[in-house]
Amino acid sequence: MKIIIIGATGTIGKHVVNTLQGQHEIIKVGSKSGDILVDIGSVDAIKKMFETIGSFDALVSVAGTGHVGPLHTMTDVDFRKTVDSKLMGQVNLVLIGQHYINPSGSFTLTSGSLAHEPVLQTASLSSINAAVDGFIRGAAIELKNAVRINSVSPTVVEESPDYFPFFPGTIPVSMEAVAAAYNKSVLGAQTGQVYKIW
Amino acid sequence: MKIIIIGATGTIGKHVVNTLQGQHEIIKVGSKSGDILVDIGSVDAIKKMFETIGSFDALVSVAGTGHVGPLHTMTDVDFRKTVDSKLMGQVNLVLIGQHYINPSGSFTLTSGSLAHEPVLQTASLSSINAAVDGFIRGAAIELKNAVRINSVSPTVVEESPDYFPFFPGTIPVSMEAVAAAYNKSVLGAQTGQVYKIW
Repeated sequence: MKIIIIGATGTIGKHVVNTLQGQHEIIKVGSKSGDILVDIGSVDAIKKMFETIGSFDALVSVAGTGHVGPLHTMTDVDFRKTVDSKLMGQVNLVLIGQHYINPSGSFTLTSGSLAHEPVLQTASLSSINAAVDGFIRGAAIELKNAVRINSVSPTVVEESPDYFPFFPGTIPVSMEAVAAAYNKSVLGAQTGQVYKIW
Repeated sequence: MKIIIIGATGTIGKHVVNTLQGQHEIIKVGSKSGDILVDIGSVDAIKKMFETIGSFDALVSVAGTGHVGPLHTMTDVDFRKTVDSKLMGQVNLVLIGQHYINPSGSFTLTSGSLAHEPVLQTASLSSINAAVDGFIRGAAIELKNAVRINSVSPTVVEESPDYFPFFPGTIPVSMEAVAAAYNKSVLGAQTGQVYKIW
């Protein structure tokens, strides 16, 4: 299977790569490192990436950033940073990628527990994580040629101790559990599912 | 109570007005009709509205439109129409309005059943309705001075028969049920809740 992994060298991405490489052809994509460099905030850059790669069987996105800061001082510009990266970046990978993906292929996007378990300073991420989950539900019933789409919704992961203080009372999840969810989406048969790892 | 209703002359908005007027001071806002005309797609227009109105006790938004069309031909530009109106329009009413609202006031936004019950041609609305619900959960734990925020998530309503063909097998809900949910948010004491009318 030819699998594109966006954010392949990130904290989660490298574990997803580890669980899939060897048995599959992996194309590592990142904004700063990887086989191909792509800024998913740019529609043109995404189009160019698909033109370069050609057809593929699965795309896994472990990419997209968001604004962190108090609601009291949050502005339209702050909120749109999360919209442009974690929402539109991932949505555009699907809107454009649907024209390059092989029949019975799959898209797997990343949302997050903040959609339902908010913490302070992340209101835009609570919104946009939920938006990613809503999008995969809507897209799942329209993708053609048996192409599937799911999202993985992790909470804070064991390898990100810097984030622990933001998540009081949350038990960090293992990288194994998170990477397994991406495997379930890519190698399984379900569609329109949100795999909650929390 | 001084209540701002955005989208006051729309299908749902006029029913919300009917259930609250008489006992409260209602300020009707719309893009084309109302006491005050505002395009919620414009941050400057929203700021000007709040400057004109001054302090208030509750804001109800029954506003925001979205793109309808097949996923197969959907583009970044199409999707962003829904982002700019139904998401950022409503989010900005809160981000800006939080600096004008009275203590113990409330915001009530509108999402929709498509977030969890997708139908064809509405992938961006499935995403953005979920985003509105995620936002109110995130904002609810940060708003100051006991200000509350909820969303109302209706399915297709009885007064919109033109939409019935898009919702096969869905029993349209009564305007009474939908308007009651807005009343529950404005006059009740809960926060961070999604009132599902479906």
